[in-house]
Amino acid sequence: MSHEIRERTTDPLADQSTLTSPGRRGFLRRGGAGAMATAVAALATPEIAAAQASATAPATGADNLPPNVPEWTRSLGGPTAVPYGTPSKYETKAVRSLYPGLKEPMSAYSTTPLQELDGIITPNGLHYERHHAGVPTIDPAQHRLMIHGLTDKAMIFTMEEIRQFPSISRIYFMECSGNPSFLPPYGKTAAEVAGLVSGASWTGVPLRTVLEHVGLKRSAKWIVAEGADGAAMTRSIPIEKCLDDVLLAYSQNGERLRPEQGYPLRLFVPGFEGNMSIKWLRRLHVTDKPGHTREETAKYTDLMADGRARQFSFVMECKSLITSPSGTHKLTRQGIHEIRGIAWSGRGKITGVDVSIDGGRTWKAAVLDAPVLSKALTSFRAPFEWRGQELMLMSRAMDETGYVQPTIEQLIQARGKFSFYHNNAIQPWKVAASGEVTNGRA
Amino acid sequence: MSHEIRERTTDPLADQSTLTSPGRRGFLRRGGAGAMATAVAALATPEIAAAQASATAPATGADNLPPNVPEWTRSLGGPTAVPYGTPSKYETKAVRSLYPGLKEPMSAYSTTPLQELDGIITPNGLHYERHHAGVPTIDPAQHRLMIHGLTDKAMIFTMEEIRQFPSISRIYFMECSGNPSFLPPYGKTAAEVAGLVSGASWTGVPLRTVLEHVGLKRSAKWIVAEGADGAAMTRSIPIEKCLDDVLLAYSQNGERLRPEQGYPLRLFVPGFEGNMSIKWLRRLHVTDKPGHTREETAKYTDLMADGRARQFSFVMECKSLITSPSGTHKLTRQGIHEIRGIAWSGRGKITGVDVSIDGGRTWKAAVLDAPVLSKALTSFRAPFEWRGQELMLMSRAMDETGYVQPTIEQLIQARGKFSFYHNNAIQPWKVAASGEVTNGRA
Repeated sequence: MSHEIRERTTDPLADQSTLTSPGRRGFLRRGGAGAMATAVAALATPEIAAAQASATAPATGADNLPPNVPEWTRSLGGPTAVPYGTPSKYETKAVRSLYPGLKEPMSAYSTTPLQELDGIITPNGLHYERHHAGVPTIDPAQHRLMIHGLTDKAMIFTMEEIRQFPSISRIYFMECSGNPSFLPPYGKTAAEVAGLVSGASWTGVPLRTVLEHVGLKRSAKWIVAEGADGAAMTRSIPIEKCLDDVLLAYSQNGERLRPEQGYPLRLFVPGFEGNMSIKWLRRLHVTDKPGHTREETAKYTDLMADGRARQFSFVMECKSLITSPSGTHKLTRQGIHEIRGIAWSGRGKITGVDVSIDGGRTWKAAVLDAPVLSKALTSFRAPFEWRGQELMLMSRAMDETGYVQPTIEQLIQARGKFSFYHNNAIQPWKVAASGEVTNGRA
Repeated sequence: MSHEIRERTTDPLADQSTLTSPGRRGFLRRGGAGAMATAVAALATPEIAAAQASATAPATGADNLPPNVPEWTRSLGGPTAVPYGTPSKYETKAVRSLYPGLKEPMSAYSTTPLQELDGIITPNGLHYERHHAGVPTIDPAQHRLMIHGLTDKAMIFTMEEIRQFPSISRIYFMECSGNPSFLPPYGKTAAEVAGLVSGASWTGVPLRTVLEHVGLKRSAKWIVAEGADGAAMTRSIPIEKCLDDVLLAYSQNGERLRPEQGYPLRLFVPGFEGNMSIKWLRRLHVTDKPGHTREETAKYTDLMADGRARQFSFVMECKSLITSPSGTHKLTRQGIHEIRGIAWSGRGKITGVDVSIDGGRTWKAAVLDAPVLSKALTSFRAPFEWRGQELMLMSRAMDETGYVQPTIEQLIQARGKFSFYHNNAIQPWKVAASGEVTNGRA
């Protein structure tokens, strides 16, 4: 039994494509991969020699390890990660960030490092945050939810009582309505551009169940939801939505909510702007009209070109974002690469994502990764070839209503230049001849 | 506009069921809810008065808060949880645990606190662990994967190169083959009984893609996978499985693997016993026969009644577990409760879960929560009524192959009493007249 040791390729995608890949030997001569290729070449010789030696018999564990066994294989590792594990010390980039230059981290937000993440689930430690008066520390044994107003009964519930109602778990996205704002500066990384979106599995009681329990009067048209934070963050939600898919959520990705996500109880309003999913939920006031609260008059309206404000723009419209390669990434070799990203729609399922590498002149369909769930992040990916030329990478998503993600020009045409929230425009990333990737709108 | 303030119920499920619930006034008189009901009653008066007052106008935020506003609403909260968030300080029970009495936490395992969790995703900090020589600390820049043996090329890959291959994300369960062992003691909590199972979204490169890249010889029948830990943990996997759904996984729930889950690279072998998903993966040796390594001769075989060992029992068969109510939980009121749990099968999708409250004499179908994914945890739930009598709660799952989860008696009949691994028997939980829940097999 024998096999031939061939020179290793530096283009793992080359065999996956019908496009021609560069001469590998020529690529190595050009030294394009720099230090990495060199380091691997140095390592390769003894390991492949060992591979040849061991290939004559099945591997049986430590007995036939190659000679250059690393330190971590020669030694006993650390203990089990109890009580609660944390990321590797090498993952220094996979962290939440505050808006650059922000001095006061209470009325603030932090972004999910989308350019470091994969798939449709965001770890709880990295889910984006937005607070209006900081993160309260709430004792769940003392927390109460009151439901009153146009109901048959006014009721107060403990957390234990809420959790006794039939509960469901659903995977949904959550996005801040200002992700991003219309205004420059637009930021360098995917997190800085649009890091106020995350995905998670949310567990809770369908609000409908509890509303049926307290009984709604015929005149009930809205619910004004109020948080227990210092801002008493308050939003109005149409009763139709409350009876559809809104949750009284107490868990996120399996465990109880994190403090910054509303522990011990938040509203979760699927597909609507994130600020409506009131955190630290203490009160649901059933009314016949919206509250016109501070947060829905002074904030969270859209100033139109004619000077009037568009109010109650609840739904987060269909959107997508390329997360790899994205700003501050660098292509270090020519050949086939993969565009990866996420798409989502507040109106239902994503039905397709197109990608372009030439700034929108030509498009091709990306592959959607299963599962494709309603009002959840959906992963997409598509191969592309880079030969050292400048590229402008773009993605545009479509949802099951037929809506297609717009360009920024189309958005400005529809809403004027003074709008702040609900910017779901196509985000371009520029690839320079050097391979460096930067924000195509900056 | 007015509404009637009625006495609050202590049974939130009562309106969800056709079964009769107890007189609420009578229940409160009996004092069954103890301190909780008292505390709520004390709180209820001023809040409901406030509710009456505020019901005459829509809520407008802080202006019409009830008088007993808690401290956390009167004050500014803490800062954003950057760079990486952690659970609430009140969630002291949602932690991983070592086997009780274990002195040495390297060759060890820790369990997922299933009785505290919801849904089909386990947070990374709580995913169960099993280590044979502790947790190595691996520098991803230095880590390499070698593929050799019956291949056209022997190749060595850096992590950067592996991540450049087309990648996918999939939600799967992972379970230790000894979850639980056949032997007593069986433990008190769901974690102690069967906490070596977790669910996550795994991102990586289909192994098939990389095998096609290096080229398999016709004689290739098995792959012997080896870890870079001090135990050089090594298992053999049939080539058919490797070409089906095995992943070279580098992310879990969106972020890079945690150290205790194989950072920076692990094999993920969906539906097979967890120890085959080799962590800290450094080598794939393509062979024509299994390695018969230490871990598949001395360990991970099943001793049958006739003294022979069953080898290569790869698949984790269909199973379910009631997580709420479960051992150490307590029913604090009579009325309608909800059984909640998880089901999974290494052979595909769960098609149904039955539950029993009378020790298996009668069964009824539970509701499965969407999404129901192949080789992933599936949530189920079913209401039941408790009137202070003794109950024996059970669940039994079925998968798309028609397999039905067995009883322990059926398993012992098939495999004898000396088997250790692959116990997927029905787990009973006993509810005492006091409401206390204990292990029905202990």
